[in-house]
Amino acid sequence: MSILNMPLIIQDTAAIEGDMGMMWMLISGILVFFMQAGFFLVESGMTDSKNAVNIAMKNFLDIAVGSLAFWFIGYSLMYGADMGGGFFHWGGFTFSQGAADLFFQTVFAATAATIVSGAIAGRTKYTTYAIFSIILTAFIYPIAGGWEWNGGWLNNTDGIMPAEFIDFAGSSIVHSVGGWAALVAAWMVGPRIGKYLNGKPVELLGHNQMYATLGVFILWLGWFGFNGGSQLAWGGDDATAASQVVLVTNLAAAAGALGALLLTWFKDGKPNLGMTLNGALAGLVSITAGCGNMTEGGAVLAGLIGGILVVFSMQFIERTLKIDDAVGAISVHGVVGAWGTLVIGLWGVDGDAGIGILNGGGAAQLGAQAIGVLAYAAWAIGLSFIFLMIMKKTIGLRVTEAEEIAGLDWVEHGSIAYPGKRQREIEE
Amino acid sequence: MSILNMPLIIQDTAAIEGDMGMMWMLISGILVFFMQAGFFLVESGMTDSKNAVNIAMKNFLDIAVGSLAFWFIGYSLMYGADMGGGFFHWGGFTFSQGAADLFFQTVFAATAATIVSGAIAGRTKYTTYAIFSIILTAFIYPIAGGWEWNGGWLNNTDGIMPAEFIDFAGSSIVHSVGGWAALVAAWMVGPRIGKYLNGKPVELLGHNQMYATLGVFILWLGWFGFNGGSQLAWGGDDATAASQVVLVTNLAAAAGALGALLLTWFKDGKPNLGMTLNGALAGLVSITAGCGNMTEGGAVLAGLIGGILVVFSMQFIERTLKIDDAVGAISVHGVVGAWGTLVIGLWGVDGDAGIGILNGGGAAQLGAQAIGVLAYAAWAIGLSFIFLMIMKKTIGLRVTEAEEIAGLDWVEHGSIAYPGKRQREIEE
Amino acid sequence: MSILNMPLIIQDTAAIEGDMGMMWMLISGILVFFMQAGFFLVESGMTDSKNAVNIAMKNFLDIAVGSLAFWFIGYSLMYGADMGGGFFHWGGFTFSQGAADLFFQTVFAATAATIVSGAIAGRTKYTTYAIFSIILTAFIYPIAGGWEWNGGWLNNTDGIMPAEFIDFAGSSIVHSVGGWAALVAAWMVGPRIGKYLNGKPVELLGHNQMYATLGVFILWLGWFGFNGGSQLAWGGDDATAASQVVLVTNLAAAAGALGALLLTWFKDGKPNLGMTLNGALAGLVSITAGCGNMTEGGAVLAGLIGGILVVFSMQFIERTLKIDDAVGAISVHGVVGAWGTLVIGLWGVDGDAGIGILNGGGAAQLGAQAIGVLAYAAWAIGLSFIFLMIMKKTIGLRVTEAEEIAGLDWVEHGSIAYPGKRQREIEE
Repeated sequence: MSILNMPLIIQDTAAIEGDMGMMWMLISGILVFFMQAGFFLVESGMTDSKNAVNIAMKNFLDIAVGSLAFWFIGYSLMYGADMGGGFFHWGGFTFSQGAADLFFQTVFAATAATIVSGAIAGRTKYTTYAIFSIILTAFIYPIAGGWEWNGGWLNNTDGIMPAEFIDFAGSSIVHSVGGWAALVAAWMVGPRIGKYLNGKPVELLGHNQMYATLGVFILWLGWFGFNGGSQLAWGGDDATAASQVVLVTNLAAAAGALGALLLTWFKDGKPNLGMTLNGALAGLVSITAGCGNMTEGGAVLAGLIGGILVVFSMQFIERTLKIDDAVGAISVHGVVGAWGTLVIGLWGVDGDAGIGILNGGGAAQLGAQAIGVLAYAAWAIGLSFIFLMIMKKTIGLRVTEAEEIAGLDWVEHGSIAYPGKRQREIEE
Repeated sequence: MSILNMPLIIQDTAAIEGDMGMMWMLISGILVFFMQAGFFLVESGMTDSKNAVNIAMKNFLDIAVGSLAFWFIGYSLMYGADMGGGFFHWGGFTFSQGAADLFFQTVFAATAATIVSGAIAGRTKYTTYAIFSIILTAFIYPIAGGWEWNGGWLNNTDGIMPAEFIDFAGSSIVHSVGGWAALVAAWMVGPRIGKYLNGKPVELLGHNQMYATLGVFILWLGWFGFNGGSQLAWGGDDATAASQVVLVTNLAAAAGALGALLLTWFKDGKPNLGMTLNGALAGLVSITAGCGNMTEGGAVLAGLIGGILVVFSMQFIERTLKIDDAVGAISVHGVVGAWGTLVIGLWGVDGDAGIGILNGGGAAQLGAQAIGVLAYAAWAIGLSFIFLMIMKKTIGLRVTEAEEIAGLDWVEHGSIAYPGKRQREIEE
Repeated sequence: MSILNMPLIIQDTAAIEGDMGMMWMLISGILVFFMQAGFFLVESGMTDSKNAVNIAMKNFLDIAVGSLAFWFIGYSLMYGADMGGGFFHWGGFTFSQGAADLFFQTVFAATAATIVSGAIAGRTKYTTYAIFSIILTAFIYPIAGGWEWNGGWLNNTDGIMPAEFIDFAGSSIVHSVGGWAALVAAWMVGPRIGKYLNGKPVELLGHNQMYATLGVFILWLGWFGFNGGSQLAWGGDDATAASQVVLVTNLAAAAGALGALLLTWFKDGKPNLGMTLNGALAGLVSITAGCGNMTEGGAVLAGLIGGILVVFSMQFIERTLKIDDAVGAISVHGVVGAWGTLVIGLWGVDGDAGIGILNGGGAAQLGAQAIGVLAYAAWAIGLSFIFLMIMKKTIGLRVTEAEEIAGLDWVEHGSIAYPGKRQREIEE
């Protein structure tokens, strides 16, 4: 065998694997894009019809402004050169490391913003949300994302980290950042009128559970791209790894849905749809960090606990913290995002080796996961608080009481979701 | 040319083709997953709004429990080692032959269960359905699937088969198994209240034809993965074969939709949407077995006849058998599933050679197809009857008359599909 | 290195790139197929509920008849051999150049027909639309498509063209052909009853903006396949080029949505959802011709202007031309289709070189683009006029006034979109 042939063949294989990787990232990105439709359906279905147009407009803003802002500045802040200690990165305006990656990262960024809109539905000014959406997509999310996905301070053990932080597809980076921002926003904006009577929470029903159901199916679908595409490559080990990611993502989602379904069945005597939907999403968030570091059984268990956790978390936030989260976004993305990150330190694996404290891996990984969880929480809460406080003191966060009662659709957009006869009723 | 180079190059190509095959199966599986949303929309749209939450909950159960049950036991019963005569297979719990294949087969299994839920909508106990869904996904479907897709007794001519049974993507294995189970279930559960007045069928209208239409578009979309992914590989002949599968799948669906549309136009004077939707699905089922063994013209003809057949079959089941199938699932999946299997024996091809009785292939293939159809019918009907009879004698199949009139959403789930003002009406 | 090895390796690479290209085209085609669901939702959501079943039936007709007609005759007229001067092509009935390409081109053809149905919603005879849909898919579109995509007279400088006409994915060939046909059809069919009072346009509201929003998300999703798949290949330069296509498609859509959103905000004081939806579609149409010949910044600018243009175009057509386009299809696809074609001549690029009149490329490309725009407009308007005039004089274009008031769903299909209680009201 002529040794001279080797490089050529290997080069060919690498090029083809590169091409396959691009296809996988593009298709995954397209699936992640579709999650915007899923969020729109979940958020509008779970809230009042008088605010449904407003939610549609928020989602369009997220993807429209988010795509432009992330292209122009966000990607650079996330994937540019290290500007010091792995905390800040910059590569110049419209920086790019290739179209497929930029597209994939763009639709991720838009997801983080969308998470917030659900929690504060029904009483927030559109202008305020628009500005916050830009800040989140262009600054808060990408800067923090670089800490891990651009080889920043969380991604190596050069500094304080006891082990490299693991967040494969963003339980913390995307979901908990969005969820904690939603926590601050929902707390500062305050509850919807009528949400609390004498300090007791009232269930404000959504208007269309069919939309919410379809939305969760679309999110589940898109999540295969969200997690699977985060392999960022295809071919050889990457192909089998990405396949495994898709498999465990589905198992965790299934377990999360089942966990919430069974819990409400035992607890309330009837299996509840709304909780099952959030349980499925919780299962998905539970496996988002660990989908490359989890056995199948471990994924099922992580998702199952996530689906149960979300039910109790929603009750805690509603009843004890008295924060009105219209769709459960804080619990699904924030609390369960933290859970999905930490579980790697409990029973995560690296290939065949356990890296969790419960499967012989010691405490280092759990420590690293905890640091990451706290860092992202502190960053998202701190920055969101600062920007929202500035807006509260200037343009204001909330519409007037009269406007809220009339509905944001009519007040902010001069339109309603179901014109037909309701249009006439309102105008009369 | 040094002969020593050959193996390396070929090995590389095979590895890359394997990688491409994995990607195709994963993407196909993701599309098949989305069919759950399609079934949800079709079934809820074609039935009363008072049972729409219940249908959503059934679909979530199918995919959640189905994913877990098939992973834990079903895949093993389907693709494990032969335990005797190609009838039973077993490979141990959580058996797997690769993540991409396991994922793809899982979403297939969930489909079979979903077919049943539509037929028995509006009067079946949720607990009963939950148990039956597990039995179908974990036992009935996978055991029978192994007969063909794991090289079992239908897949070779060692035993009684005059030719190898052909069911490329599951007209019989998935659709008719689901359809015949639906037949037994709908018959044993009995018709909805008000379906028959003095022995004459009454048309019980659905509540949202827009959902049904969107659902059929999603199913049609997902079917490209259902049939195309069943190639189970990509690269070289597999790539062109899978492309051809997608092409003929679309042609058959188009012909099925057109067949039903034109038939209702000529028969009733007006082209009917509900029948056109079922015609499209019938076209898809018609080509599911034969999509690798059909010319383009043959696919069009198979789909066209499927689209016409489904209209007459639905009338026969409703008027003559007096079985109340709320969405036409028995006809679409059972009857047309049999048709799609048999048509290979009529004008199927194997490459350029005819294998049907009408195109010079003799009678062997038609005989093999008929044996397969009968075997799957007998298995699905027999097992469904046994399990449903046990449940009928123990926990019962059906809700009470008062519960049925109130609607399963409120009775079983304490919720309704469109809360808003209807919530208040019900509570008053 | 033995030179003998080279051909084998290169051949392998080419074969694998061919296989990858097939997969990309198939997946892209599947995404384009899904656009039918998007059009269905946009068109039904933006119009009255009494015509929603009719719109569903038109969309099924488009894909069903379109798939069959394009397979049997259309593809041959588009991609067959040159029959003279690059104006007409023919390759025999059921001509094909491979299943993946035929499938991809088929779903394109179905798109062109669908564009027309929205504009003339609510008053057109179903029979008339059915015939026109066949004519458009089988003759008008494919003959004109061959001028460019089959190397016809627009695709080379042998004849009158000052430069090769560029229309990568069909701003002109698909969208403006559909849009101009819609212009002729909407003009000849005339406005809906009540659209103009004393010559002033009345806003006839749609019935469900949630459907319209979901529809636009689905169209945006499908457009990644529409534009990206038009690379028609994958591997090496094709992979990076197609990735860039997907990226700029998203940027232009984002800019178009933002353009319309901001314009309505400044103009009317409130950001308008309907216009934002059409702005997103306009952004997508703006980049469809130039997605392979546009910098990222250029794409943003093209989309932004498209999103603004569509608002003014809709007002002009409604107020000045007094043509009733029920969903804005003429503006979105016709006018913006022309804009998307021309913009290549303004600031298009070919690799690093400017080919537009504003970036140093001279006037030749703009001239070529203008010729193409005019040629497709003349062809679509001329042919549509002839065929629609024949139908007007024979079977008629429009339902009676009483039928229009009753709604096409009941009159043409004996059914309504939301049976439930409305069914009872109508029957009483």
